[in-house]
Amino acid sequence: MKAFVYHGPGQSSWEDVPDPGIEDAGDAVVRVDTTTICGTDLHILKGDVPEVAPGTVLGHEAVGEVVKVGSGVRTVRPGDRVLVSCISACGRCRFCREGSYGQCLGGGGWILGHLINGTQAEYVRVPFADLSLHPLPRAVNSQDAVLLADIFPTAYEVGVLNGQVRPGDTVVVVGAGPIGLAAIATARLFSPGRIIAVDLAPTRLEAAKELGADAVAHAAEEPDRLVADLTEGLGADVVMEAVGVPETFEMCTRMVRPGGHVANIGVHGRPATLHLEDLWIKNLTITTGLVDTYSTPTLLRMLTAGRLPASSLVTHTFELDGMEEAYDVFSRAADTGALKVVLGGKHHDEVTLRDA
Amino acid sequence: MKAFVYHGPGQSSWEDVPDPGIEDAGDAVVRVDTTTICGTDLHILKGDVPEVAPGTVLGHEAVGEVVKVGSGVRTVRPGDRVLVSCISACGRCRFCREGSYGQCLGGGGWILGHLINGTQAEYVRVPFADLSLHPLPRAVNSQDAVLLADIFPTAYEVGVLNGQVRPGDTVVVVGAGPIGLAAIATARLFSPGRIIAVDLAPTRLEAAKELGADAVAHAAEEPDRLVADLTEGLGADVVMEAVGVPETFEMCTRMVRPGGHVANIGVHGRPATLHLEDLWIKNLTITTGLVDTYSTPTLLRMLTAGRLPASSLVTHTFELDGMEEAYDVFSRAADTGALKVVLGGKHHDEVTLRDA
Repeated sequence: MKAFVYHGPGQSSWEDVPDPGIEDAGDAVVRVDTTTICGTDLHILKGDVPEVAPGTVLGHEAVGEVVKVGSGVRTVRPGDRVLVSCISACGRCRFCREGSYGQCLGGGGWILGHLINGTQAEYVRVPFADLSLHPLPRAVNSQDAVLLADIFPTAYEVGVLNGQVRPGDTVVVVGAGPIGLAAIATARLFSPGRIIAVDLAPTRLEAAKELGADAVAHAAEEPDRLVADLTEGLGADVVMEAVGVPETFEMCTRMVRPGGHVANIGVHGRPATLHLEDLWIKNLTITTGLVDTYSTPTLLRMLTAGRLPASSLVTHTFELDGMEEAYDVFSRAADTGALKVVLGGKHHDEVTLRDA
Repeated sequence: MKAFVYHGPGQSSWEDVPDPGIEDAGDAVVRVDTTTICGTDLHILKGDVPEVAPGTVLGHEAVGEVVKVGSGVRTVRPGDRVLVSCISACGRCRFCREGSYGQCLGGGGWILGHLINGTQAEYVRVPFADLSLHPLPRAVNSQDAVLLADIFPTAYEVGVLNGQVRPGDTVVVVGAGPIGLAAIATARLFSPGRIIAVDLAPTRLEAAKELGADAVAHAAEEPDRLVADLTEGLGADVVMEAVGVPETFEMCTRMVRPGGHVANIGVHGRPATLHLEDLWIKNLTITTGLVDTYSTPTLLRMLTAGRLPASSLVTHTFELDGMEEAYDVFSRAADTGALKVVLGGKHHDEVTLRDA
């Protein structure tokens, strides 16, 4: 089959690799219909995620059709159309039993396109298939559904739920890339009083407005002051970090009110300064997190009901074999205006439309 | 009257000052029977808390008798024996309405011995008396009760409740001074599986054992490794910082398990490094906080019922006019072994005992 293979920092290609097969009774093999590229994949290509071994197929998000299952799989069978979650879960360890699937101690967690071959391929082996695949209703568009493999549950769990957004809150989202935009969209489910988006790119701030931000601030134009002005100098109730650099994390801790929440969603490569000399007295709650994907079934029901604006995040689509071009467009987002790039997915949706 | 007055960094004395009087309808004046010295007072004397103006009477903890009340006071009257809370609360502002009294916007919060004259005096004016004084049952010993003005609610709210200690948890308390010891004592109320105390002073580690620590670790002897060894390498469920320096805060973030809680109780004067490059993925919750004292009525009921080991924290007692000697003993805790030093309080307790 063809797959997108990492060969060490700066080196990768769409190339022939052996087809995957069942290796464990809990495995499924999925024929990938739709996949996408995550900002994390770009970090891997830069060499920022050293545990990814050269030779690994990248990708941790997909929609596809189950073609084989191991003897222990109970909830999916060949022919099922499924969402492949970015998180695999053994379901048996201490953390899985508490719903902390992202921290799975039994060999799961974020493994696809990280510790084992991933979804940017014609086929992918998915361990722990019972807890790592979600059967999809026919009415759900593949290009929408693939956004529930990672970005929507990440934004919702790690941003909105960890940040404890409540009705009437002033919510700031720092970083209006795909994750920040999904955080804006899912924060709205809790009827905040006001959402303020902060970014450097005017096109992203426009997208934030379309997804429901009430105010936007350019990151270089004193966004702290805008937040203070809108909150009688107190700061926001909830501030989400969706960039992943120390400067934006520190900005979040300046924007939050006493007793407020800072929810870190960004993937960081460097330490930040925590100004405890100011913050010790402020009754803050700061959370970090890898997504657990416990919310994926809920988000799928909401998507099916038309309550998640997933497709508005997709700016570019490609066929699966356009992977290298898709990486090029996604990695030059500042020039191309790319938010989410999606590969494949047209076949199912055309068939569904024709039959409808 | 006599009072302990701050005259700028390194300068203070027990001296004559004017008696306080009622300035607002919500005020009470309390004759101080018992007071104590807090680590924060030492910070003030060093000049670390620049908003304390020279000429301010220090102290934010007391037990005494109400001698005057303003026309608006409803819940206490002259003759009542009361606990003076370290937090004053207007009861009317946004934060007070949510129980966040420490963040009071109406002129309260931590003001005694900070922004206005405090309790290390023969008399103290207490604003917002209805919400800032707690009538004391006669059976409660003054030297015990005074520890509920600050250290017990601080340890309980900012450490144990913010840290969300639950039955079976492994709890680490870094710093076994009075606050850390009170955190150990109140963590036990939630039946943790194991409490590990970390400190540099062998005498404090002994005190920690007496208050219920199951294991102790000298801070210089790889306490991280002990915690890892006791938790199958995962780390503790809850780690409390009760020192207030960057090194111990950073130690706490290394000791906590994925999905665990770091509750900062310490008062910090310098920023810490937050290793987001390791922590972003760990699903941590980090909390900071000034005490709100919403738990003081509960703690008073528990003290009355003999369920709080308050007196075991008191190592030295003085008469009220022994203030300068008490400061000397407390500030040389490494030599004197001082935990809590308490001034006054003998009269009530002798009378109570004689009458009993």
